Amino acid sequence: MPPPNLPKQTLLTKFIPILSWLRHYPKQDFNSDVFAGIITAILFVPQGIAYAMLAGLPAQVGLYASILPPLIYAFLGTSRTLSVGPVSIAAIMIASALTAPELAALGTPVEHAIILAVEGGLILLAMAVFRMGGLVKFISHPVLSGFTTGASILIVFSQLPHLLGLNKQQCGYDIACNMGTMNIYAAGLGIFSMVLLLLMGKPLTRTLKSMQLRESLVTGISKTAPLLTVIITTSVVSFFHLYDMQQVAIVGEIPKGLPDLSLSFLANSKEHWIALLPSAIFISVIAYVESVAIALVTANLRNEKISTNQELIALGTANIATAISGGMSVAGGFSRTMVNFSAGARTQLAMIIAVILLALALLSFTEQFTHIPKAALAAIILVAIAPLIKFREIITTLKYDRADATTQTITLLAVLFLGIEEGIALGVIVTIIAFLQRTSLPHIAVTGQVGDSEQFRNVGRHEVTTWPNLLLIRIDENITFANITYITDFISAQIDNKPELEHVVLQFGSVSYVDITAFETLFSYIEALDTRNITVNLADVKGPVMDKFKKMDLDHHLMKGQVFFHSIDAIKALAK
Amino acid sequence: MPPPNLPKQTLLTKFIPILSWLRHYPKQDFNSDVFAGIITAILFVPQGIAYAMLAGLPAQVGLYASILPPLIYAFLGTSRTLSVGPVSIAAIMIASALTAPELAALGTPVEHAIILAVEGGLILLAMAVFRMGGLVKFISHPVLSGFTTGASILIVFSQLPHLLGLNKQQCGYDIACNMGTMNIYAAGLGIFSMVLLLLMGKPLTRTLKSMQLRESLVTGISKTAPLLTVIITTSVVSFFHLYDMQQVAIVGEIPKGLPDLSLSFLANSKEHWIALLPSAIFISVIAYVESVAIALVTANLRNEKISTNQELIALGTANIATAISGGMSVAGGFSRTMVNFSAGARTQLAMIIAVILLALALLSFTEQFTHIPKAALAAIILVAIAPLIKFREIITTLKYDRADATTQTITLLAVLFLGIEEGIALGVIVTIIAFLQRTSLPHIAVTGQVGDSEQFRNVGRHEVTTWPNLLLIRIDENITFANITYITDFISAQIDNKPELEHVVLQFGSVSYVDITAFETLFSYIEALDTRNITVNLADVKGPVMDKFKKMDLDHHLMKGQVFFHSIDAIKALAK
Repeated sequence: MPPPNLPKQTLLTKFIPILSWLRHYPKQDFNSDVFAGIITAILFVPQGIAYAMLAGLPAQVGLYASILPPLIYAFLGTSRTLSVGPVSIAAIMIASALTAPELAALGTPVEHAIILAVEGGLILLAMAVFRMGGLVKFISHPVLSGFTTGASILIVFSQLPHLLGLNKQQCGYDIACNMGTMNIYAAGLGIFSMVLLLLMGKPLTRTLKSMQLRESLVTGISKTAPLLTVIITTSVVSFFHLYDMQQVAIVGEIPKGLPDLSLSFLANSKEHWIALLPSAIFISVIAYVESVAIALVTANLRNEKISTNQELIALGTANIATAISGGMSVAGGFSRTMVNFSAGARTQLAMIIAVILLALALLSFTEQFTHIPKAALAAIILVAIAPLIKFREIITTLKYDRADATTQTITLLAVLFLGIEEGIALGVIVTIIAFLQRTSLPHIAVTGQVGDSEQFRNVGRHEVTTWPNLLLIRIDENITFANITYITDFISAQIDNKPELEHVVLQFGSVSYVDITAFETLFSYIEALDTRNITVNLADVKGPVMDKFKKMDLDHHLMKGQVFFHSIDAIKALAK
Repeated sequence: MPPPNLPKQTLLTKFIPILSWLRHYPKQDFNSDVFAGIITAILFVPQGIAYAMLAGLPAQVGLYASILPPLIYAFLGTSRTLSVGPVSIAAIMIASALTAPELAALGTPVEHAIILAVEGGLILLAMAVFRMGGLVKFISHPVLSGFTTGASILIVFSQLPHLLGLNKQQCGYDIACNMGTMNIYAAGLGIFSMVLLLLMGKPLTRTLKSMQLRESLVTGISKTAPLLTVIITTSVVSFFHLYDMQQVAIVGEIPKGLPDLSLSFLANSKEHWIALLPSAIFISVIAYVESVAIALVTANLRNEKISTNQELIALGTANIATAISGGMSVAGGFSRTMVNFSAGARTQLAMIIAVILLALALLSFTEQFTHIPKAALAAIILVAIAPLIKFREIITTLKYDRADATTQTITLLAVLFLGIEEGIALGVIVTIIAFLQRTSLPHIAVTGQVGDSEQFRNVGRHEVTTWPNLLLIRIDENITFANITYITDFISAQIDNKPELEHVVLQFGSVSYVDITAFETLFSYIEALDTRNITVNLADVKGPVMDKFKKMDLDHHLMKGQVFFHSIDAIKALAK
């Protein structure tokens, strides 16, 4: 007999997974988790500041988003290695949302960002309660891929002015004007940062690996690149006073200490909440889709399980937590998670350690962040984002399927030229239309018998036997309002080619559903054929379909036609 | 060699079908067509006036819609017996469109009605040009049936005040108040009309048939009921001066003569056209759907063909013609077409004769129409509309499919409580959502071998052989973004039940399409299974699917898995 408190515990561990894994935590994992935690903490500082800049927000908003949210996720999330915090795609979506002109009158950018995070969190929790996680499947791979490439291109364009110290506000898209405003010191720091980051990427990794170093150590060393970049460039800026002497843009002062927890966002006006709601929907849904996609990648590699509904709860709560602690919207970050994973993280303990280290940094030395040059941060963003621009994926998709490639291209172009949210929305609509279009052109084949076997194959693709008085038609799809007209038209066209025809046999082996529109249309068509002395028979009908047909008085509707268990029985009975 | 003018002639007869059938017109059909034409003409007068009243328009607008449009359709339509003219469903939709408050400032109700007809005609022609007739399939049977019942109920409520001579304008929905305003003379005429119409329906038909009369003659006699009703009640109203003495509502004066042809609607403002466009879309699409549905019923009975694209052209032109001649939107009417058909019409010549007779009536005795009591017209509408209220259809649908029954009920309720156009729109949206929902829960079965045969069936439904190291899974649907998650979850659940499992065989016999999202998800899932030493194999893969897989380097993605031509080959190779 199970102990009386077992059901309660099961429910608890379901909703708070840490209770389950921490009790059985294997001591030998501890060293790996600590190492991975240190490496990820090193990434948190530059990424947090950079993504806040990308979103058009003060640096601390990104750092605060790296404290409570990963901690919450460590307790509630089902991925062992997902690193939750600020991410580039959400950041550019926030930046895009903040440009809406009506927002200026309603509050400050930080207030907008916090409301976006709360609303996003509530949306994800609502999706969890109503089990609507399945809805996100409409963001199909082509939509997600087109969107990611498009958003990444937008990020590149948003960071080039920072990288080169251009004055985009003054010049807009005038290239010559922009080049005239270039700050040569900023550009130098930016380009130096890019080169350093690129060299410490693949080339360094390859060299270290050839020196037979442990893989997690290789990751650890190469992933200090952003921190190293920041330390070097910041030292140069500080030492030469480039920020005032040469007007190199810097991060500026960051308040010392941990974020205050506050529910003051509740005081914002109803109009303010409503104005941001559409953007919050897009940001949170994309954050969720990308997080789960990343979580699945690492989980599959280690045969762990991801519960999509629990992820909604974890990410929803994490986004509410970021808002309470003055941070921006969060999600699972691809690069950070891969770093965490390949640095050897076994559990979310690694993230807890990373958070503790980041908190210590915020408590002790935020003044060192003041002189970080924006050019270096732009370089960090650009190097992180570049691999997400995948034009080649469109070519690959095109090779496979033209409709999917079209969806991908439309989404990409719409993100670039209509806007990020418009791009996603259009992509989803195109996905649904293309899907409906495709199902309205079902695959149907005229078949014949393969030799003396019980097999039937397409007459167009195989050597098969056919009979003048008999037409075998295999319907390869469920029959619905969307395709029934196509199917009856196809049968009619085939009938016109067979002057001696007496019997049509519809092979229903692939049909597992016939809706009422199709049922009524098909059987009034069968009745009409009966007046022309052509009998329609069915074969290979599946159980569930047959059950439904029987409820509708099938024998009457089939007129003189019969139902055969298998096509071969139809041949034996009808072929002349 | 064909004569040089053949292609031109073929094109002509394609777009003007009358050129083809009139040349080969069989003389023996002439009598039938004349008889049917007379009967239909007798219906045209009361229906034309009644449907104009239903739409809230002067009587002549309905009569004018019964002249040019059926004539145009006779030349362009592909149905031999469809009777085009004013119809009840379009009339109630026009009435509903005319209630929009912003219209009052833009013109008169007749002007609105004419613009609705022109716009509707142009929409149908555009659909023909862009071959978009297929779009109407989204108005599935459940939507159409729910809509028809809902609209018919609205018609009943709109006619009760006329039938009983109530003052609905004064009382609204207050039943007691309405009853207080009842005009006892009008109510008497209305109820007498209903009784007469009902008696001349089934009871008279049955009696005449039992007297061995010819069926077309029986139809002819019973279908004079509306005319007889009008003649009797109008005579009573005229003779006793009920219209002024007792204030019985009458049709009023109708201008004598044929309608003037005019393009004056072109002078209406742009705002006017834009304000009516949404309603015009709904009216024309429903008019088209209902017309084709009726045309197909009669065509199927006589093995004639309907070209759906040519119907768009014919109905589009007919609607432009009705506007030019001062009439309201037209469609194929169900009751009138069935009368025409059962009175023996062989070709559209019957309709041409009906139009000539109606034109003669308009030229010679419109003053006799003046005193037609509205109560009698309401009775005609009610008797015609009652059979369209089919609550039983929802029960039938429910028996067959719960999702379809839900769509039907939602459409019906939305038409009643939200509005006619809103109801159709909601029905279409629900249809698409339900469709996507259903395809995301595909039919999948674990199968086993039937005896020693080459057949495989569902383990849950049949006695079959299975093996501990082998899992056979038949996927019964195309694999897309909508259902791939369900499929991989299903496979995972089955794997957990089989501790000795080595091989999964996916039976692809029913799969004729795998989109890129599904492809990528499936094969990264297969790679993940490979790390657990479970190999995934494919069997029964169709040609087109295999072609695509090969482009994507299938062998690499399948890891150690193989592709078998047929499931039996997989058993021979893998079963232990």
